[in-house]
Amino acid sequence: MESAPQKTIYFGTFVHSLEPTHLDICKNGAIGVDEAGKIVFVERDVENVEAVKKLHDWTSDAVVVIPTTGFFFPGFIDTHIHASQYPNAGIFGKSTLLDWLNDYTFPLEGSLSDLTRASHVYHRVVSRTLSHGTTTASYYATIHVPATNLLANICKARGQRAYIGRVCMDAMGPDYYRDESAAETLAKTRETIDYIRSIDPTHETVTPIITPRFAPACSTGCLADLGALHRETGYPIQTHISENVPEVNLVKELFPERKGYADVYDYAGLLTDKMILAHAVHLTDEEVALVKARDAKISHCPSSNTALTSGCCRVRKLMDAGIDVGLGTDVSGGFSASILESARQALGVSRFVAMTEGDAAKLSVEEVLYLGTRGGAKVVGLADQIGGFDVGKSWDAQMIVLNNVDETAQTHHELEAPVDYFGWETFPDLIHKWVYNGDDRNVGAVWVKGKLVHETSKSKS
Amino acid sequence: MESAPQKTIYFGTFVHSLEPTHLDICKNGAIGVDEAGKIVFVERDVENVEAVKKLHDWTSDAVVVIPTTGFFFPGFIDTHIHASQYPNAGIFGKSTLLDWLNDYTFPLEGSLSDLTRASHVYHRVVSRTLSHGTTTASYYATIHVPATNLLANICKARGQRAYIGRVCMDAMGPDYYRDESAAETLAKTRETIDYIRSIDPTHETVTPIITPRFAPACSTGCLADLGALHRETGYPIQTHISENVPEVNLVKELFPERKGYADVYDYAGLLTDKMILAHAVHLTDEEVALVKARDAKISHCPSSNTALTSGCCRVRKLMDAGIDVGLGTDVSGGFSASILESARQALGVSRFVAMTEGDAAKLSVEEVLYLGTRGGAKVVGLADQIGGFDVGKSWDAQMIVLNNVDETAQTHHELEAPVDYFGWETFPDLIHKWVYNGDDRNVGAVWVKGKLVHETSKSKS
Repeated sequence: MESAPQKTIYFGTFVHSLEPTHLDICKNGAIGVDEAGKIVFVERDVENVEAVKKLHDWTSDAVVVIPTTGFFFPGFIDTHIHASQYPNAGIFGKSTLLDWLNDYTFPLEGSLSDLTRASHVYHRVVSRTLSHGTTTASYYATIHVPATNLLANICKARGQRAYIGRVCMDAMGPDYYRDESAAETLAKTRETIDYIRSIDPTHETVTPIITPRFAPACSTGCLADLGALHRETGYPIQTHISENVPEVNLVKELFPERKGYADVYDYAGLLTDKMILAHAVHLTDEEVALVKARDAKISHCPSSNTALTSGCCRVRKLMDAGIDVGLGTDVSGGFSASILESARQALGVSRFVAMTEGDAAKLSVEEVLYLGTRGGAKVVGLADQIGGFDVGKSWDAQMIVLNNVDETAQTHHELEAPVDYFGWETFPDLIHKWVYNGDDRNVGAVWVKGKLVHETSKSKS
Repeated sequence: MESAPQKTIYFGTFVHSLEPTHLDICKNGAIGVDEAGKIVFVERDVENVEAVKKLHDWTSDAVVVIPTTGFFFPGFIDTHIHASQYPNAGIFGKSTLLDWLNDYTFPLEGSLSDLTRASHVYHRVVSRTLSHGTTTASYYATIHVPATNLLANICKARGQRAYIGRVCMDAMGPDYYRDESAAETLAKTRETIDYIRSIDPTHETVTPIITPRFAPACSTGCLADLGALHRETGYPIQTHISENVPEVNLVKELFPERKGYADVYDYAGLLTDKMILAHAVHLTDEEVALVKARDAKISHCPSSNTALTSGCCRVRKLMDAGIDVGLGTDVSGGFSASILESARQALGVSRFVAMTEGDAAKLSVEEVLYLGTRGGAKVVGLADQIGGFDVGKSWDAQMIVLNNVDETAQTHHELEAPVDYFGWETFPDLIHKWVYNGDDRNVGAVWVKGKLVHETSKSKS
């Protein structure tokens, strides 16, 4: 296995979502990827690699074979993660959103003005998310331009597809952590955009994303400026919406002239098909209709919504309304940098909704895997490039390796990954076991655009 | 570090629960453990090991020093786990209790009549639970006497404290998996008791536990026989209660003469202070009072209750009523064999209750750690022996090791455990990070009664 991209055939079982309820499991598959990392063929029921090479006049000898108890799976897409908050993962006590921001979050984010600390934190979060199979992430950094630019550098160097958001907030936060004016917000956001354009002009890997923190943190002028910037540049936007009840009430107080939270963004020209709205726990029916009308996207962040007692997002209702939904870890409102953990938590949250609102609310394992891949691709505006194994898409993928339990083994080896395969399970059952118990130890290798960006010894077994 | 027990001083930071809201964090501690695995002294604010040796006329040179970013913690107590269901961990689809039993559980349990398969499964579950720091487990096996006895052998050989329950069910289950009569239930239960007595007469490690599966699976005569057996032998009892609504309704139908689910067990003489009741999601106020009056114990199984959409156990209400509560993984209604995962899930479930019933329902990190250790010790009737680091108790402990993130590291090493310590966190914050993100990789070593029963390379670092 080489880290430099070359024409490669990926051979063995592959699994990907075709639609929310249909997970395609293909044994004996072969996927051909060219030097640019694009998928050029997908073959099923292949007898051997040589037959495929002949069929496609394939000259390269590079082949990656999946172990028997493993499968290729599309890379995960984290549609909402605060890179700057990673060191606080798991620290919230019994707080809820607004006190959590003041007590835990602003002090940590503020401290990343120190570039040594920022480097430490950002290298770590990129390492961890890659190890969890996240090939694309939509990051919030901090208000600091140099540290935000550093995050872009790190993602580019490590090869992780990333949206990089300099956090905009001129109306909330302590003195040491706030933009002084809407003008400063706009100027600093432009600075970061210019920088990212300079290091990646065609946005092959890193793309700026306009990031008003959330309505209560931004003045009306600031929101309007960012809406104008979005129209001018075409860059996507990310923010938070309707995460918890006191926050929704605060927005009503701060923007009495608007019809609701979603309308605040809509009025500013921010509610477009390039907007990623995180949480959407307490949207009204009118707001759901407005979000759908504008084709804005939603990032479901179940770990965070539970940990901060924010509430339960009605994902089924959003999907039924035709809104594109993806998964977000929301580190560190969410405690884990793993989208697989978010998928598990999404199963749990949907069951809590089902307990009071009926079985239709329940999401299936297949559906949460869709949200973490193809759904996420729509949310970040890359549905034509990532999220599944289709000809013309990019090879953004992970190798999942489960643990073949030796019948004679009586002890436990330190290096054994979770998810024991006993040999009698069906393949769909194995996938369920992976979703409920898997972790980064099951991720043997990760590729972005055909380039190997993470690897463990399991990929060689 | 030796696997044979010898007089040993455990030196460094230790952490244990004193009461539900009070987690004692002692840096520079020293705990002396004698050859029998009993704690003979606990010293705080110790300058060095030599000073402690002198103070206690200690002659042994065996010392285990905790790494800087680690701590000793009491072993976890799993108060409810179906060893036989381990291969199905994560497999339930969208099922709920009664269809899950028929579709997934009875076929698997039935297959363990094959002792080769039973050996495979039971070695694995003991390996996995030990690796997660579980030093005591209350196991359900199957209806098969030889396989149940095999589980007892394995626990004894591996040194895990265990209650071993041969499953009793003469009124439910497919033809291939059911006791033929109440008489057979009693006879086979006695067989297993006799066998366990023969291999561990004083129940140092393994103890029989009388295990009526749950009321709907047992005839009235069977329940009465098991109540009599409990009075005769004094052995503890475990069963399920009020897990989901259709089950509660089924019990009403099957036992119309009883006042409720708890009364079915009470009438049979099974509701005593040696009874472990799993789930208790839908108990009425009258039943809560009855459980308290009998001093019966409750095993809270949050992962399972969420995965099977059973409901949310009101743990705060049970604790406020003065009932002893512990945590159970309930593999494979629960998907994970880790009590740390159960603790995390208990935090989540309490937050879901809080969303509708108010903040008082929320459990803290400190409280769920109490439930997993000292609370669990009360539930399994070993409050005088395990659950905390007190003089006279047994050294049932785990070494927790967190990941000291090197500031210069830019990549991720395969062997790195979760829970990144950046260096600026407070110790209570570190513990919160561990609870939310830790796994078996953070468990460097595990001891039961002073004997090393699990170890990884991290214990040497």
